[in-house]
Amino acid sequence: MAPQIVSAASTKYDKHPESSSRELFSEAAVQAFEETSISPGDLDAVYVGNFMGDLIEDQGHMGALLADHVGAREAASIRIESACASGGATLRQAVQAIESGAADVVLAGGVEQMSVADIEHVTDALANAADDVYENEQGLTFPGIYALMARRYMHEFDATNEDLAAVSVKNHNNAVDNPLAQFQKELSVNDVLESKPIATPLVLHDACPVSDGASVVVLVSDEFAVDHDLDVSARILGTGQSSDAVALQDRAAITRTPAAERAADAAYADADITPEDVDVVEVHDCFTIAEILALEALGFYEQGEGTRGAVEGETAIDGQLPVNTSGGLLGKGHPVGVTGIGQVVELTKQLEGEHPNQVDSAEVALAHNVGGSGASTTVTILGGA
Amino acid sequence: MAPQIVSAASTKYDKHPESSSRELFSEAAVQAFEETSISPGDLDAVYVGNFMGDLIEDQGHMGALLADHVGAREAASIRIESACASGGATLRQAVQAIESGAADVVLAGGVEQMSVADIEHVTDALANAADDVYENEQGLTFPGIYALMARRYMHEFDATNEDLAAVSVKNHNNAVDNPLAQFQKELSVNDVLESKPIATPLVLHDACPVSDGASVVVLVSDEFAVDHDLDVSARILGTGQSSDAVALQDRAAITRTPAAERAADAAYADADITPEDVDVVEVHDCFTIAEILALEALGFYEQGEGTRGAVEGETAIDGQLPVNTSGGLLGKGHPVGVTGIGQVVELTKQLEGEHPNQVDSAEVALAHNVGGSGASTTVTILGGA
Repeated sequence: MAPQIVSAASTKYDKHPESSSRELFSEAAVQAFEETSISPGDLDAVYVGNFMGDLIEDQGHMGALLADHVGAREAASIRIESACASGGATLRQAVQAIESGAADVVLAGGVEQMSVADIEHVTDALANAADDVYENEQGLTFPGIYALMARRYMHEFDATNEDLAAVSVKNHNNAVDNPLAQFQKELSVNDVLESKPIATPLVLHDACPVSDGASVVVLVSDEFAVDHDLDVSARILGTGQSSDAVALQDRAAITRTPAAERAADAAYADADITPEDVDVVEVHDCFTIAEILALEALGFYEQGEGTRGAVEGETAIDGQLPVNTSGGLLGKGHPVGVTGIGQVVELTKQLEGEHPNQVDSAEVALAHNVGGSGASTTVTILGGA
Repeated sequence: MAPQIVSAASTKYDKHPESSSRELFSEAAVQAFEETSISPGDLDAVYVGNFMGDLIEDQGHMGALLADHVGAREAASIRIESACASGGATLRQAVQAIESGAADVVLAGGVEQMSVADIEHVTDALANAADDVYENEQGLTFPGIYALMARRYMHEFDATNEDLAAVSVKNHNNAVDNPLAQFQKELSVNDVLESKPIATPLVLHDACPVSDGASVVVLVSDEFAVDHDLDVSARILGTGQSSDAVALQDRAAITRTPAAERAADAAYADADITPEDVDVVEVHDCFTIAEILALEALGFYEQGEGTRGAVEGETAIDGQLPVNTSGGLLGKGHPVGVTGIGQVVELTKQLEGEHPNQVDSAEVALAHNVGGSGASTTVTILGGA
């Protein structure tokens, strides 16, 4: 019963202060249902990834609320929160619902409305993904956390600010041709290096923006797809998920992300493939350093060599392993609870041969989604229909 | 691969302003692991039901945080939020993780810390389970919502304040002998009727209290239990879940809870039993009227006749269908994201023959957990080992 993706859609990621979460989610869902013969009433379950609805919109209970808004009032409905890995975790629960036999037709979506709040409030809300006792109360928020990781990585492996900037340049430039991306402006290495410092060694263009948006995928069981003669867009070949200490101080090392290593190992085993089989990748580049750490954790580069991907053009759209052809979190944007689903929407387009930054002969795709500074990580491996 | 419960434990539900969520959760988990040969390092996944950690403790990302605190830092970890049905939804996802083959050993727990905030803040947080646009912003919070349901039920079916009070009396008196219960004081019908009005026709003793606490169950696959020669406490025979409109105004009727009817039908079908097979029940009596509606939705009484359960003693510990032998939410307390797990802890004790209010020959047990005013409902059916 390998789950099949029959439809996938996203709103544009951007600041949408005029739209509530229920409006954004409905917009993505309506678009998804236009592309399949399944209707919302067919849904057995609706899974919603959302991180900060309680804090920004005074709205919890998003599972039932959004199931109703997409026309599936009677479906089993659940909100999943694993910080910025909420989307990836949501998809994995939807996959398990199908694989367990509990559901045949499932919507897995994410939504986040961040821009209606002022930036201090958003920073406070994001900090709920860190350890409140040992990090937040000491004044350490995410730019600072990732700056510590970047600084240590630069020290251990002789990496430079230019190495980090190369990731930002690649991803921003990929975003230019993606109509769903928040930023559509080319950047040079100098543009990045000259942007204002946010937490040394990180500068503004090392960081993803505040974004609103929604993404959904509709999944069905293999049997349901056959019985209803559905057009399949992509297949879920395997998933993996692992955790780590939430507080950076509790990790054995801060230049590796072991939860990602374990999630990747589990997903490769589940899909019965190796890293060499992967054709196109979306990783969680909330900061430039995060993409470099991801490439190493996923087995694409040895430790200390992940910088080579962007610097040498190996992770460019026409490189040997295209990474973040969507623009990534840096260029496409990062509505936090949505991102893991949005990555799968982008990769589904790659596997269908319909991506604006299409990679040649993409047959196997991988998404890597992180919560906090690495405490929650999901890896999803997709194959073409 | 029917999941088996090998251990189940709860903290006392009470006001624990000195304890954080991480401390409460760890207390319940430590106790659970004392009762089984499984150790935390064996866990493949940790599911955490929590409703308001973001709002009360500035702490999200509870899945990874609490997995680490119970000694399972590397497990897949997820927080589930379906308002006050978070616990039931958490258990159902844990069951699906096992039934899908993704996990063999899973901890499903819930935690809530409510008493460190002042009551206005808690009321605001609880209101996140309702529709912010169509209910909260109009000044309608949960006592008012359930008062509307009670008033209409009393009108349609000639029910009285005494009928509601009988539920409160039964459940409070059941709580007296439960050391885990928040209240341990007998009440008479007059005590209830003379308590202060909170939202007419409901009075104080028609409502559950604000509670802190944690509950956990450890689940394993059938194969794992056999391979490791584990003592099994109970079996999951079936689960069901359904949803409804979040806002009361969007329901076809407010004296029925159709999501509970659908969840029950699904769970009975999954377990291959009928309501007549059930020996002992825990229902979501956040207000007295909710127990009456639950008994009807679950198929134990015809509509309009659910009042008979408490009034005639049919749902007493020695009645034909004992309901809320724990004391229920009214007597035991209601740490909101925990309750669905806590019900399963109580029923596991009944099936083991070790409950302080033991029911004779309890072989099949049912738990009913509700989010909001009925928009999320889970039903779990358990059998003895």
